[in-house]
Formats: sequence, C-alpha cells, structure tokens
Amino acid sequence: MTTVTVWNEYRVEKEDDEAREVYPEGIHGAIADFLEDEEFDVQTATIDDPEHGLTEETLNETDVLTWWGHEAHEEVADEVVERVRQQVLSGMGLVVLHSGHFSKIFKRLMGTTCDLKWRNEAERERIWTVEPGHPIAEGVPESIEVPEAEMYGERFDVPAPDTLVFTSWFEGGEVFRSGCCYRRGAGRIFYFRPGHETYPIYHQSEIQQVVTNAVEWAENVNSTSPSFGNVPEPPEEG
Amino acid sequence: MTTVTVWNEYRVEKEDDEAREVYPEGIHGAIADFLEDEEFDVQTATIDDPEHGLTEETLNETDVLTWWGHEAHEEVADEVVERVRQQVLSGMGLVVLHSGHFSKIFKRLMGTTCDLKWRNEAERERIWTVEPGHPIAEGVPESIEVPEAEMYGERFDVPAPDTLVFTSWFEGGEVFRSGCCYRRGAGRIFYFRPGHETYPIYHQSEIQQVVTNAVEWAENVNSTSPSFGNVPEPPEEG
Amino acid sequence: MTTVTVWNEYRVEKEDDEAREVYPEGIHGAIADFLEDEEFDVQTATIDDPEHGLTEETLNETDVLTWWGHEAHEEVADEVVERVRQQVLSGMGLVVLHSGHFSKIFKRLMGTTCDLKWRNEAERERIWTVEPGHPIAEGVPESIEVPEAEMYGERFDVPAPDTLVFTSWFEGGEVFRSGCCYRRGAGRIFYFRPGHETYPIYHQSEIQQVVTNAVEWAENVNSTSPSFGNVPEPPEEG
Amino acid sequence: MTTVTVWNEYRVEKEDDEAREVYPEGIHGAIADFLEDEEFDVQTATIDDPEHGLTEETLNETDVLTWWGHEAHEEVADEVVERVRQQVLSGMGLVVLHSGHFSKIFKRLMGTTCDLKWRNEAERERIWTVEPGHPIAEGVPESIEVPEAEMYGERFDVPAPDTLVFTSWFEGGEVFRSGCCYRRGAGRIFYFRPGHETYPIYHQSEIQQVVTNAVEWAENVNSTSPSFGNVPEPPEEG
Repeated sequence: MTTVTVWNEYRVEKEDDEAREVYPEGIHGAIADFLEDEEFDVQTATIDDPEHGLTEETLNETDVLTWWGHEAHEEVADEVVERVRQQVLSGMGLVVLHSGHFSKIFKRLMGTTCDLKWRNEAERERIWTVEPGHPIAEGVPESIEVPEAEMYGERFDVPAPDTLVFTSWFEGGEVFRSGCCYRRGAGRIFYFRPGHETYPIYHQSEIQQVVTNAVEWAENVNSTSPSFGNVPEPPEEG
Repeated sequence: MTTVTVWNEYRVEKEDDEAREVYPEGIHGAIADFLEDEEFDVQTATIDDPEHGLTEETLNETDVLTWWGHEAHEEVADEVVERVRQQVLSGMGLVVLHSGHFSKIFKRLMGTTCDLKWRNEAERERIWTVEPGHPIAEGVPESIEVPEAEMYGERFDVPAPDTLVFTSWFEGGEVFRSGCCYRRGAGRIFYFRPGHETYPIYHQSEIQQVVTNAVEWAENVNSTSPSFGNVPEPPEEG
Repeated sequence: MTTVTVWNEYRVEKEDDEAREVYPEGIHGAIADFLEDEEFDVQTATIDDPEHGLTEETLNETDVLTWWGHEAHEEVADEVVERVRQQVLSGMGLVVLHSGHFSKIFKRLMGTTCDLKWRNEAERERIWTVEPGHPIAEGVPESIEVPEAEMYGERFDVPAPDTLVFTSWFEGGEVFRSGCCYRRGAGRIFYFRPGHETYPIYHQSEIQQVVTNAVEWAENVNSTSPSFGNVPEPPEEG
Repeated sequence: MTTVTVWNEYRVEKEDDEAREVYPEGIHGAIADFLEDEEFDVQTATIDDPEHGLTEETLNETDVLTWWGHEAHEEVADEVVERVRQQVLSGMGLVVLHSGHFSKIFKRLMGTTCDLKWRNEAERERIWTVEPGHPIAEGVPESIEVPEAEMYGERFDVPAPDTLVFTSWFEGGEVFRSGCCYRRGAGRIFYFRPGHETYPIYHQSEIQQVVTNAVEWAENVNSTSPSFGNVPEPPEEG
C-alpha cells in the first residue's frame, strides 16, 4: 500500500475567510480526502508541526510527498529541506502543487529560480493534455476547464521537463507548462500548476484525477541502489 | 555562405484570389525575400518544377531547406521525399512551416501521424517564448501577437521535441507547441507553426526573425560522418 | 491481464545448428517461456504465419508486442508494418530486441537509419544501468555481465531516446546505448540490445528481468484518445 | 569577441610533483593557452585570488566560465557560488571539467549529488561520439583514445542531460556519460569528463578541440530577458 504524506503550509486557510470557506479542513484536508478514497495510506503534515511534520521517521515511511506552500516558504528550515531532498534522491516521489513552485525544496531540486508571471483575477483556465499516452493523463479529458484560477504565465524558469504532460491556456492571453515530470536521483517529481487557496480547484474531480495519477506515477520504484566512490578492483581483471 | 532552398507547393497562391493578394510572388517569394536580406544565398523550388525542384544536385548544395505545403502533399513523389530524408540525415537542415506538418517528409522523419486540431476563423494568436536562451529565440520578444491566424490545437501528434522553444495561445481557447526542435541523424529539424496563405504572417517582422534564426540554427554542422557496419578489428587488440 | 505477442522471424533457428541448439523452441519460444512465468497472457507469431501472424484481430488484443528479426526484415509486408505502426501509435507497447533495430517497423517509427557498428566475436558485454530509478531497471543489478555477445557500437543512428536506461561496454573497446525508451503517439517503445541467436542470452535471468520489466512498462495506458481535425466551435464562445 | 574566464583550483599543481610536471603553468595555464590560440579573449582565476577571482565585475564581462577543481571544493565561498549561479541563469556559459562534477556550483545547478564511481589506475579511455551532428562534436573523431586516465563510472547521479554528446569506455570495464549538455535559465552548461592533474590530457589536441567547441556552444545567446512577477494587465483586454 502506498503511503502518501500530504504537506501543507496551512496558514492562509486560518487567516483568510475566503480560503477557509473553500478549504475548511485546510488544503491538505481536501487533498488527503480524495487520496484516501483511492485507498492510499494518507497522512498530513503542516509547517507548524514539530520539524514541520517531516521527521526522518515520517519521511522514511513516505512513498510520495505532496507539497503546497505559499507565503511562508522561507520559514521552512534548511535542514528539513535537505532531509526531504535526500529522500527524493533516494527514491521518494514528490508532487509539487501550484505556489509550491517557489518552495525551497522545488527550487533546490531544480537549480533554477522557478520564477514565472502571475495575475490573480479569477480567469478561466483550460488545461490541455499534450501527452495523452502518459500515465498521469490516464482517464483525464482532452482538456480540463477551471472556471476561475490565478494565472501563471511563461517564461517558467525551470529546466525543460523530462516529459511535459499538460499545458494551460488562460483567458487573459498567457500559456503555461502546467504538468512537468522530472527524474532526480532515484526519485520522480511532478509539478502541477492548478490550485489556489481561494478557488475550489482541488474539489474538481478532473484535478483530483490528475493528482491521484501523479501520486501513483511518482511512487518509488524498488530500484537497486547504485554504489558510488572508489572501485579499487576493476570488473575486468587481468 | 549558407545556401537556403525555399520550397513551396505554390498552388493556392495561383488558385485563390485572397492568397494571391497576400503573397503575389508566392509564399516562397515572400520567404526568399526576407532571407536574402540576411545575406543567405537563397534559391526557390516548387512542386511543379521538374523533380519538384529538388534534384540530387540542388539538395547537395543546400544547407537548409524550408518547406511549405498544404493541399498537394500526396503529389510529392516518394522518391524525392526519400532523397530529402537522406539529405537531412546526412546533415542538411530542415525548417517545416505551418501546414507542412502534414507533408510526407515531416511525417516520415517523425514516424507519427503529425495530426492536430484546426479551425480557420481569423483568430488572434500569441506565440510565447518558453526557452528564451535558445538561439532560435534570439532577438524575439517574449510574445509575438499574430492578429489573425488559423488555429492549430493540441494534441499535436509528434514525438516530444528535443527542445520546445515556443508555445501558442489562441483566442478560441486552444494551445499549441509552435516551435519544436528535433535532431535526426546528423540533421536538425525545426517545426514552426505560424503562416497561413491568406494572412500576411510571413510579412510580420518577428515571424521573419524566427524563421531567420531557425535557418541559422539548422545549418549543417561540419560533423565527422560516423562509419557503420562491420568492424572486424576491435579498437582494443590483444 | 496483459496480453503479450512475442514475434520472431524464426528462420535462423531452423537453418543454423548452433542457433537451434541454443534456442530449440525458437527465440520466441524462449521469450514466451519466461514471460509466461510472470503471468502474462502470451502468444507467439512468426514471419511464416499467414499475415506474419499479425492480423488486425491479433493486434487488437495485444497489449505489448516484442520483436526479434534479423535476416528477413525485407520480407515483412509493408501493409503489416503499417498495421503494427498504427497500433503502436494508438497505444500498443513495442519491445524491439537486438537485430530488430533494422526491422521495418522500428526504422519506420524512428524515422532514421537505425544503423550501427557490429562485430560478432563472442566478446564480453557489460550492461550498465544509467537510470536506476526507472521501472525497467527494477530489480536489475548495477551491471549485467554477458559472457559472450555480438558487439553493437556507437554511433547508433536513432533519435535521442526520451529516456536512456542502459549503456553497454564491450571487451573490444566500444560502447552502445543499449536500453532506449521512446514515446510515439499513445504508445511506448523500448529498444533492448542484447540477444543474438547463437548465444544463450535470453536464458540469462537478468536479461529476462529487463525484458519482463519492459513489457510491464510498455503496456498500454488506458488513455483518452485525442480528437483530431476541424473544431468548428471554439471552446471559448464569445 | 568571446571572453572566457578559465577557473582553476590551482592547488594540486603546487603541491604535487607529478602534477606540476604535467601542468607547470597550472591546469588553467594549459587551458588558457589553447583557448587563446582560438582567438578567444582569455583570462584566468584561481581559488586563492581575492573572491576566488570571481568578482561581480569579472563575471559580468565573462561569456563563458570553465571550471576545474578537486580537493578544495568546500573552500569556495557560498556567496561566490551563488554569484556564479545567478550569472549562469542570466546567460553566462559554464563548462565543468572532470573532478568539477563535485564542485558546489555544478551540484547546486544540477540539484543532485553528482556522485559517481572512480578508480585512478592509468586506464585507457575511449570517448565515443554518440551525437555526431552536435556542434560540440564538430571536427572531433568518432572516438578519442586517452592512453591513461582516471576512470569515472556510472551511475553518474545527474539529471538526464538535455543532450548526451559523448560516452566513455574504460579498460577496466566501466562506461560513463562523458559529455553532457544542460540548459538552465538562459545559460548553457557542458560537463566534460576527461582531464586529471597527473595525465597530459589537456595537452591532447582532440580534447582541446572538444573544450574549444564547448566554449563556442556555451556562449551567451543575446536573448530577450523574460519578465517575471505580477502582470496586472492581461495581454487580452476586454
């Protein structure tokens, strides 16, 4: 059984009436909810838990970590970020959501600024599947309409994804690479754009389908750990 | 000096008043015109020339071939297609434009259907640069607005490009991977979406800039031809 | 349950004593054998079956097709090659083995010559895992030693793989990209180098593990088929 | 004219007789020497220069930075590493050489451990060109023989390169992805494996050719800087 840890900053839902109304149990609550329906073993963690809820023990038993953060990226301790990074490189999956593009962990794994354009004017978004044969697109319609969304626009300053699965269209005239797959170390990373705290995007079934697929895709392959360092004896002797 | 052969089907501009008005010298005439300004050595060829203007001799002296075709793809002789393909694999650059996505040569080199969605309703297109550090984006603004265009929409059934440089937004709600780089054999291929016969898109300076950059990028590297076949003597003897 | 069709030319094992001794039931027999142990639903087909055993009906029920051919590539009917290609583009998986690099179907899907260097001198091969987190590397050691193999050497004239999983070392001094993943249309293709008719390579358990993993990886995702062609009504209706 | 800054740790050549004999002017001296012959504008910098020779001013006028370091990676100040990283993301080219795989700047830009296997036993290395049409392979033979080299072996824990140009074979039985291209931000990065302090590898003309090509390839494209952040006015108004 796949163990998923749903991480959420969990600040804006406590501070902002609009966000609380949309996500009364927090964004993590909404995500955990639909993932539990898929028979994952789901736990949640937030920034204000000890060690942000991401202890060595928790990470060791996590197959896939999902990450939503926004205003408090800088408060996440560098030590915990490094711990998460090591776990990803060792094979833990990571699904980074929406404003998580600016999280320390995503920027650290990408090596770039991860910057983008944005505008929060409740615009219509259409998310087009550009790679329909990819497992993360399974059961997802050709395009998903999100009635109201915060716009994210290109240039998105990330390494070119290993696979680009989705691209978004926005009412105001921008486009965005919305679904990006990366392999780093033995781990898999999926960045998925949709999901702002004041729009009910994570309550939308097609969005839930994508996140569910992403968790399945990102799950740790039971890989043979490579050895590193000095190899005094060559495989070819003599 | 780079030798460019601008190939055009050159049918619709003779048959259709609207197209003739926009491209009185043919689409190839318009493209040759702005490429000559860049000090390339430019020649043109069309479907009704003997061997479609693509003799062995012509191809041998061509560094980069640009391709525009639409309604007569099936009339291009398989033998000539194969000749062009061999030349690309040996290092000749190929810039495929707009409806050329359905040309025999592009489909043959891609291996896929190269199908897409389309709608010809004079929609506004915005072409966003997603890879600003790429040579084909040099001097190109962050986005190019095309006032009236035929829409091409995803799923574009091609192999994922080696590099995706541009993505288009359309007024009607679609997106499209508009600028796609491929390496095949020793040759480079660039597919660039814009350019319909009844819109003055190839008269637009930003579009001309992209095509010019693409020709420069696609030019043959003076590469060492690999040897193939049986190698009876191993490099390591003994 | 995954249905696998194991295709084999099945000529050399009938003509050559050495090959028959190593693969008395044919190469397809050996491959079918270990795939059946993995609880796939396995059937075989050979070049001398009617329609090469690849009827529309057979392909429609096939999730993954494996392909081994060598001396009779040219005898495979173009019509059947096109039928297989359409099936791959629609989502059927394809695992191309060893000398299948020169099969019509692989060359057609790649668009390139698929040429390479070779030498058949029973050299030692070491297949190194370069992407240990990939599902095709699951349970596979860091390197597989093949005691005697036909050498294939770079330049391997294929499009750069979407993912490179294995690279081979040869005693005589060459290297080769041995495990190459491609996505074409809705289908997945894996090329795996090892396996010559006169060496017992498909009897080796690590090789069997890779082929088994490849079949699982290549299996059809239950994807939403994109629609193509004219879209008269834009998603955005103004 | 392209300005190249050749950075070298410059410790081992002062401490170790063998290294000093091979590189009496330091490794940077040898590299600067052959780059000057190519009519680049070349300057050098070493770890013991103030700010490691990498002041804001120096970096601003640098088109391409080459990096060789080994035992003192940890002594490079984080502030300087971050300065270099920002410059790369803004378009400066970076050519990382041999043991530079473990430099702070390379690890920071890759996001992974950049670990590998190694053995220093003066083994023969053959560097095979796998992408002969790439500009970095221009004028380079199909394979380069390095008579004596330190072995680096896979798994090389880096993100899959955007383009893999070279792969190495080693006498002792290992392989290695020796020439790896990356695009990060607006900048280009090339990792090139060969070059140990006690072997005259940078005196070998084919190796010099590769480094020269890499510098040319990595040079800053005169790109349009994307804008980031809030875009209050949508491109589509009304």
